[in-house]
Amino acid sequence: MYVAVMGFGTVGSGVVELLYKNHHSIVKKSMQDSLDLKYILDIRDFPDSPYKDKFVKDFNIILNDPEVQIVVETMGGITFAYDFVKKLLLAGKSVVTSNKELVAEKGFELLTIAKEKNVNFLFEASVGGGIPIIRPITQCLAANEIDEIAGILNGTTNYILTKMITEDVSFEDALKNAQELGYAEKDPTADVDGHDACRKICILAALCFGKHVYPKDVHTEGIRNISSADVEYAKSWGGVIKLIAAAKKIGDDKISVTVGPAFVQKRSQLASVDDVFNAVLVRGDATGDVVFYGRGAGKMPTASAVVADVIDAAKHTLKKKNFGWDDAQENYVINYREQSAAMYVRGTAENREEAIKAINEKIGAVRVLSRENAPENELAVVTNPLPEGEIRDKLQNISSFAPVSFIRITNY
Amino acid sequence: MYVAVMGFGTVGSGVVELLYKNHHSIVKKSMQDSLDLKYILDIRDFPDSPYKDKFVKDFNIILNDPEVQIVVETMGGITFAYDFVKKLLLAGKSVVTSNKELVAEKGFELLTIAKEKNVNFLFEASVGGGIPIIRPITQCLAANEIDEIAGILNGTTNYILTKMITEDVSFEDALKNAQELGYAEKDPTADVDGHDACRKICILAALCFGKHVYPKDVHTEGIRNISSADVEYAKSWGGVIKLIAAAKKIGDDKISVTVGPAFVQKRSQLASVDDVFNAVLVRGDATGDVVFYGRGAGKMPTASAVVADVIDAAKHTLKKKNFGWDDAQENYVINYREQSAAMYVRGTAENREEAIKAINEKIGAVRVLSRENAPENELAVVTNPLPEGEIRDKLQNISSFAPVSFIRITNY
Repeated sequence: MYVAVMGFGTVGSGVVELLYKNHHSIVKKSMQDSLDLKYILDIRDFPDSPYKDKFVKDFNIILNDPEVQIVVETMGGITFAYDFVKKLLLAGKSVVTSNKELVAEKGFELLTIAKEKNVNFLFEASVGGGIPIIRPITQCLAANEIDEIAGILNGTTNYILTKMITEDVSFEDALKNAQELGYAEKDPTADVDGHDACRKICILAALCFGKHVYPKDVHTEGIRNISSADVEYAKSWGGVIKLIAAAKKIGDDKISVTVGPAFVQKRSQLASVDDVFNAVLVRGDATGDVVFYGRGAGKMPTASAVVADVIDAAKHTLKKKNFGWDDAQENYVINYREQSAAMYVRGTAENREEAIKAINEKIGAVRVLSRENAPENELAVVTNPLPEGEIRDKLQNISSFAPVSFIRITNY
Repeated sequence: MYVAVMGFGTVGSGVVELLYKNHHSIVKKSMQDSLDLKYILDIRDFPDSPYKDKFVKDFNIILNDPEVQIVVETMGGITFAYDFVKKLLLAGKSVVTSNKELVAEKGFELLTIAKEKNVNFLFEASVGGGIPIIRPITQCLAANEIDEIAGILNGTTNYILTKMITEDVSFEDALKNAQELGYAEKDPTADVDGHDACRKICILAALCFGKHVYPKDVHTEGIRNISSADVEYAKSWGGVIKLIAAAKKIGDDKISVTVGPAFVQKRSQLASVDDVFNAVLVRGDATGDVVFYGRGAGKMPTASAVVADVIDAAKHTLKKKNFGWDDAQENYVINYREQSAAMYVRGTAENREEAIKAINEKIGAVRVLSRENAPENELAVVTNPLPEGEIRDKLQNISSFAPVSFIRITNY
């Protein structure tokens, strides 16, 4: 059986490396006589690569070669990747991808084509890098009804927050440090504004709850506005701030999906996930909470997830995976303002006693937090669970209090 | 397709409950037209059970019914379970079990029969209860060479140690508390002496490294001898004591397997695994460290793992799992004394300075630990990594030092 790899960047070159390095055990686990790399598609030249005889520049060579049964897509982006993957599936080839954008935007369509053509479309590497998460959700937890899934899905922001928490530096300084180390890109928007985590939670939500979720329908906040004050208040509350992407069942036919900073209790398994590591918590009706932890990005961890899918595709040439991933549905994702959660609110109050009294009158009892060296007119409270929109609106309409920062509080 | 369940105890009754409760989604995920419970085997009577018409007392009814294609074994123990499972596999039925003793002792033989008969023998629930671990190792991490696997695999001992660490109680008091809560049995031997964890690490070692490992070949220590002094020293060292079951590749054709108390660094994901929770760390050459966390026991978590296997067995009626689990091999598991590790050693020394000097001379520099209110003649040190037997022998032969407690130090 022959494999082609499209895109010889970080992940693609890792896939090629792994296919050679662990070739013997990979063939054995595939239950095939052979599993060999035939082509690498890339527009660039790699004259010094040990795989130089494998490179091609024309996609059609791969598309039209009947010997190639499995194609790995590690190009990233949507435009070309979507066009190529669609054509490959239509031509009856299985596709394995690490491209979260592609899966989050086009997952339903591509899975539908794969089903019609009786081939596999697999994407374990698109969420959580080297952490096994998609297969465990769809197989190991198959006997469960999943109630909620939540995770730290972006390593860059988690590195920045870890720096802010442990070394008491500002967001700007932590970001600069992450950029120097290569953990953050020059333009860090996709990471720090939560878009990357958003794509991943869309994929997980579709797998857990059965319907496609578009990133545009998900309320997404990043970590740019997190201040040292918030970090300190989280500590005094008994936890840490993490960028949490979460999806939750609401009744029988709706879900909530949000991405944003959140307070996580210190004793939670998610609280100790530091630096560039990722973790995903799955709350099932039978299992309770299960947590998966590991490297959410990086060349070899991600490549390892891709190759595991290649093995799976090679093994399952007859019987295809059925992810039970249906089309998107209007009003399926509720407005984040309707979602009930306790919230941390920090703001300014010239008269603290008066402000606390007014807040109590509006939304019931709150817990007042404290931190060392706080400005005298700073007030931070934790509310009881209420619809988020209600908390925001009511606290914005108090004359003695001017809220600056709202952060959700998790219960895991 | 029809299923039978043998043993209506805690796990078995959970399996039956789940098969009914989530019936619709289970059938869908099995890709079968139906998946129904036909028999429950138990020697006891359950006249008030809602499933009372399913009960049978004669194993042969299940064995001889060609409609039953998948049998769940949740009886526990070896004698009957082994006899029944073997007969079922030989009769061409797939078997799903939660019985770690059975898999640890007879895994190779039963898998060999299953392979010959082209049926499935699955046992996800035998390790880590509701935590997906066996399938992730064999599938998701298939592109990796696994270097090491280690875990907190016994909830009872982890509960006792958590109590000792957080509430500063003795082992005896913590055990009594665990017994009152039903977390520990009246005769707690299998848990507190490490036998339960030993069976589980034998199963994991076979899956990761490819050869059957018998519990009798594994050096196993429990937690009976852990004192409050050790707990405090672990804290001053910067970590906690956990009962760790670990298996590690040594060169190309040997492994080490041990079960015993160990120091775990505070920042490790295993350090924050508290109470009855379990966690498994897998160190792969491509993924780095991946950790799986969740409820390692209990009715519904374990039943959920069993039912996931039932779904898998129903789906894979044509193509069977190949675990690559070969027969045991002599001298494959090295003697624990040959295994290199840093160690914590606590003992008595009438003259501390003299003892430290003598220890340094025997095994090189050590780090001396301290704790509040330690008796004047108490000395606790942490060594550099050396073969465990060498550390034990050399420190037992120092006239100025009488070692009382040796505990391994982990590097995860």
